[in-house]
Amino acid sequence: MQKPSLPKGTRDFGPVQMFRRNYILDTIRDTFQLFGYQQLETPAMENLSTLTGKYGEEGDQLLFKILNSGEFTKDVTPGDLEKGPSGVLSKVSEKGLRYDLTVPFARYVVMNRNELTFPFKRYQIQPVWRADRPQKGRYREFYQCDADVVGTDSLVCESEIILMIRRVFSKLGLTSYGIKINNRKILTGIAEAIGEPGKEGPLCVAIDKLDKVGWEKVQEELIQRGFEAASIQNLSPLVNLETDLKGKIEFLKVFLKDSPTGLKGVEELEEVFSLLEKMGEDLAHVEFDIMLARGLSYYTGAIFEVKVYGVSIGSVSGGGRYDNLTGVFGLPGVSGVGFSFGVDRLYDVMDELNLFPGDRVNGTKLLLAHFDQKGLDYALSVLNSFRKTGIKSEVYPEVAKIKKQLEFASKKEIPFVGICGDNEISTGTLSVKNLATGTQETLTIEEALALLG
Amino acid sequence: MQKPSLPKGTRDFGPVQMFRRNYILDTIRDTFQLFGYQQLETPAMENLSTLTGKYGEEGDQLLFKILNSGEFTKDVTPGDLEKGPSGVLSKVSEKGLRYDLTVPFARYVVMNRNELTFPFKRYQIQPVWRADRPQKGRYREFYQCDADVVGTDSLVCESEIILMIRRVFSKLGLTSYGIKINNRKILTGIAEAIGEPGKEGPLCVAIDKLDKVGWEKVQEELIQRGFEAASIQNLSPLVNLETDLKGKIEFLKVFLKDSPTGLKGVEELEEVFSLLEKMGEDLAHVEFDIMLARGLSYYTGAIFEVKVYGVSIGSVSGGGRYDNLTGVFGLPGVSGVGFSFGVDRLYDVMDELNLFPGDRVNGTKLLLAHFDQKGLDYALSVLNSFRKTGIKSEVYPEVAKIKKQLEFASKKEIPFVGICGDNEISTGTLSVKNLATGTQETLTIEEALALLG
Repeated sequence: MQKPSLPKGTRDFGPVQMFRRNYILDTIRDTFQLFGYQQLETPAMENLSTLTGKYGEEGDQLLFKILNSGEFTKDVTPGDLEKGPSGVLSKVSEKGLRYDLTVPFARYVVMNRNELTFPFKRYQIQPVWRADRPQKGRYREFYQCDADVVGTDSLVCESEIILMIRRVFSKLGLTSYGIKINNRKILTGIAEAIGEPGKEGPLCVAIDKLDKVGWEKVQEELIQRGFEAASIQNLSPLVNLETDLKGKIEFLKVFLKDSPTGLKGVEELEEVFSLLEKMGEDLAHVEFDIMLARGLSYYTGAIFEVKVYGVSIGSVSGGGRYDNLTGVFGLPGVSGVGFSFGVDRLYDVMDELNLFPGDRVNGTKLLLAHFDQKGLDYALSVLNSFRKTGIKSEVYPEVAKIKKQLEFASKKEIPFVGICGDNEISTGTLSVKNLATGTQETLTIEEALALLG
Repeated sequence: MQKPSLPKGTRDFGPVQMFRRNYILDTIRDTFQLFGYQQLETPAMENLSTLTGKYGEEGDQLLFKILNSGEFTKDVTPGDLEKGPSGVLSKVSEKGLRYDLTVPFARYVVMNRNELTFPFKRYQIQPVWRADRPQKGRYREFYQCDADVVGTDSLVCESEIILMIRRVFSKLGLTSYGIKINNRKILTGIAEAIGEPGKEGPLCVAIDKLDKVGWEKVQEELIQRGFEAASIQNLSPLVNLETDLKGKIEFLKVFLKDSPTGLKGVEELEEVFSLLEKMGEDLAHVEFDIMLARGLSYYTGAIFEVKVYGVSIGSVSGGGRYDNLTGVFGLPGVSGVGFSFGVDRLYDVMDELNLFPGDRVNGTKLLLAHFDQKGLDYALSVLNSFRKTGIKSEVYPEVAKIKKQLEFASKKEIPFVGICGDNEISTGTLSVKNLATGTQETLTIEEALALLG
């Protein structure tokens, strides 16, 4: 007899976890919809030709590949086998599991470009799979929640991303967090201004680690990456800049005065803030972080990252604007901006801050309990009235000790038990016990409906 | 430049399909919850040791297997390669994609048996994958919606399955359908009564095809399967039985009088009907189909199948009771009963019968349109009021021809457009156009909120 287990890095989500996950996902979904985003779902499997080459060499390694069906070895020669994985892979596998939601979205846009109405605002909430080494907080299957709009350059989209993040966090009860924002063009301008034009790529990679490793280590890395000492010196006023949002903007207008690209980035940022003002909104939680780079190389405009303060896992959301998402699939010039919530991280943050609602509003509200077959029959006769008014309710389905039935209710976190004894049967009532308070009162069915409805 | 495509047998679900799928799934989910079922999600990937041997030899062939990560060829010898797939498979793959929701559920119950409260009622709505040959209505990725209760023999569960099916169908507007019900024990009894005891297995396989191929062909198959001509003769009164539900039960009480198992099956069925009566429910849509067998061999009690009449794809739901779901994972004696909705089939049926709601209640309700930058700014200034009252709304994010913006609203099926022209700006109003009727009226923001809220 085999003892079953789960694959490494994967999880089951039981009723309690599902309730909490849905609490987060429903909040995100409502917000996306409120802002006009429409849902898309793509298949778990994509052709490997769609996936490979999109996530760098490391990403290709982390793709889960699916073995071809049937005679999958038929094209493999002993010579292929000798070459190892690289000789065999393309002959035994042509599909892989979704690695993120962005590439499938780009594929979808290209395949449906003639039917779609642009600007196209889509959201997508689905699991992705990565063959990463599993560790705390890192799984091989996890959900992503993406919202993207493609087909417009309008910075209204960027402003609305800030509003959506604030709405989700406010609904979830998260109050201590920062929406860090920057613009990739500013980073380009900084590379020019410090005397290393065109090197914003390595500059970004290095300063992306500033939070984690500190300025000393970043300087070492910049030297290794061939930056001149003078350039690094030029960079340091930025790293140590102690001023507010407006102050940073004024500083950059001078610092970047010879870089049209850099100034464009500042201008875009100011426009995002100005649009918020036009919408009657303030800059609460918005932090202009000149050093924010984010790893992904396809960003060309605004960059976002959201950090929750005072918890172990901080970064729970991020995104940015890209100019050429679909170019790799043959459709150039589709600009867009998008962002993503990390649900597993938000879950951990909510858990750490004890922010999940205590009552399980999605669960059964009433259990009908009984002492004998007669009581069960009576319970069955009144059960329908509760369900017909939409009250989630169930009957303990077999004759059993009342203690066992109360334990059942308690373990399932059912808040009310309607006890069906001889008295209740003869008077057409229910003794409704509130498990939280321990109080019990005898009610007519109508009164019970009113109490629980 | 590559032209992207989808893997065979898989689909994208765009906004319209998602709205419709969610309409079905929400209805099913609400109903499951109303009856006290709790949600479970399991990983897409399971160990192959969990999956193989559970679905028969054909099922094993149809499992999607995942290639091991990294140096996946390292244990494969040229000798293995010579043997073909059977020599190589176990060395290159140890995980597969979920084939149904039942086996993962059984695994979950066994792994969590000490934490779960029985009877455990769970529902699960997730995709499954099968490497079947794709054809009309058959996909390689499709959703299943299962509800099961384990840990009780109570026939209340069977009665409630009938109620859940009726509720879902009623909410979806489906009126012409039959919930076919039978009991596996009756089939066992029939095998005994016709003089072929112990042969209910092949009997089931053959008569399961009765609807598709007719009685003549079934007889031929029974002969091939070694049934005596006399036994088949004994079976024919059952096949041609023209009577109502009560008549069938009376007939079987005589026909099965020497089979205690068969009589137990009839008794269980009567109990299910009697429980419905106790719950104040009738037998609407319930059809006792003595010949209903269903393919799966693990059923031991009630069997269900739901057919919609007057459409090309009829069977949209099914299930039954099993006595030993978890035995294969080392936990014997866990009885349960469950059923499943086929979402893709329900979708096709709803589509064929034109039952989807015409208005896209999940979509954006209001688009703010404008003629120039001033109008866009005004639109931005009023947009928040709508969102704050929960009205799904958006602004056309850039200055564009009004015709283009109206087309955008029309294509996205947004029912109302709030036009922001100079008049509206100066009077603090909106000209709200109803795209369905073509009427337009100038409203204050408060009036517009009241109209759309």
